[in-house]
Amino acid sequence: MTPEEKLTQLGIELPTVEIGDRPLIPWVRIGNLLYTSGRTPSTGPKGQVGGDVSVEDGYAAARDCAIGQLGVAKAALGDLSNVVRVVKVLGMVNSAPGFGDQPQVINGFSDLMVEVFGENGRHARSAVGMGGLPGNVSVEVEVIFEVK
Amino acid sequence: MTPEEKLTQLGIELPTVEIGDRPLIPWVRIGNLLYTSGRTPSTGPKGQVGGDVSVEDGYAAARDCAIGQLGVAKAALGDLSNVVRVVKVLGMVNSAPGFGDQPQVINGFSDLMVEVFGENGRHARSAVGMGGLPGNVSVEVEVIFEVK
Amino acid sequence: MTPEEKLTQLGIELPTVEIGDRPLIPWVRIGNLLYTSGRTPSTGPKGQVGGDVSVEDGYAAARDCAIGQLGVAKAALGDLSNVVRVVKVLGMVNSAPGFGDQPQVINGFSDLMVEVFGENGRHARSAVGMGGLPGNVSVEVEVIFEVK
Repeated sequence: MTPEEKLTQLGIELPTVEIGDRPLIPWVRIGNLLYTSGRTPSTGPKGQVGGDVSVEDGYAAARDCAIGQLGVAKAALGDLSNVVRVVKVLGMVNSAPGFGDQPQVINGFSDLMVEVFGENGRHARSAVGMGGLPGNVSVEVEVIFEVK
Repeated sequence: MTPEEKLTQLGIELPTVEIGDRPLIPWVRIGNLLYTSGRTPSTGPKGQVGGDVSVEDGYAAARDCAIGQLGVAKAALGDLSNVVRVVKVLGMVNSAPGFGDQPQVINGFSDLMVEVFGENGRHARSAVGMGGLPGNVSVEVEVIFEVK
Repeated sequence: MTPEEKLTQLGIELPTVEIGDRPLIPWVRIGNLLYTSGRTPSTGPKGQVGGDVSVEDGYAAARDCAIGQLGVAKAALGDLSNVVRVVKVLGMVNSAPGFGDQPQVINGFSDLMVEVFGENGRHARSAVGMGGLPGNVSVEVEVIFEVK
């Protein structure tokens, strides 16, 4: 099954990603590595996980970031079969004071990568707490893909 | 116009960067990638953006970080024309509780990259809030350049 | 002296590192770069450095993260002589409000890299304050090694 077929099976539709005209762009490809900009959720509650936002809602937000990053990869590569593997993830959680369950939140990103890419979706990762995120979103994730 | 000519036109003088003798060094080059250490501003108010420090002062601090990183690239490469492109920026903002305008702050870095390198100055980026920065500076930025 | 001999001389025993079966894995190798997951200390006090945790204990925690990452490199490469150099370190410190001595804390990581690898242990680095870390640990460090 291709990654796109797997997404269809999961009922996931990828967002359209445009490069735009700002200094900040969604991805840069160098050789066989695709560096992405940090991606924030398209929906869901704002605020700190462990405070205003539950771990469950944080997990859903991280999964939403994953869907966004797959949209980035699709826009960059045309076809998700051109992803060789997920290399490195930096999962950033807007964290209430003392909150320490960042890994459980960022699993929402990581789990989808494995659902879509199987063994090649496994990756090195840091899942850590931030002192704030743009627009007070709960989660932001950047990722490096190895690509064909 | 070369990057150095552009800097002269902008009235910007790059700092001298020395490698020093500490475990921490300003850059490491691996193949065609130049990894830099996080760079902090040389001047400007200390403290949290959105609290003691305004977004405007944060923008200026981020621009100052960009000048510093160009000094690093110059020291590493001899000539900024050896920068092929800006690849990836991690913009870290010392953020007051609830502050969410990190992108507007880090635009101070990103805008200068485009002023100096044009289209090749555009980059992937995360602009996020930290729980603290060295010496209580307002902004720190690390960057990966593709180089000749 | 090999890195392993140096570790023996320092009285340091590396932890055993297993890949496991989770989406998150300890390392991914792409070409000559070894990307690691963030590593947290195996022991030591929990909490924010500059608050519950002293800079000295934070330094020890960062050194413990370094020992862990050497264990990762050993598991990935078989032999630490296959490390060409340390490239890039992201040192993340669980920071009390206003704390600004993150570099002094992360020196615990950086110093050990130089003790073990000499000149090739020197690296680009950011040492920054987080809004929280998994399980409320005091320090987490991720690193990129260049490898044979």
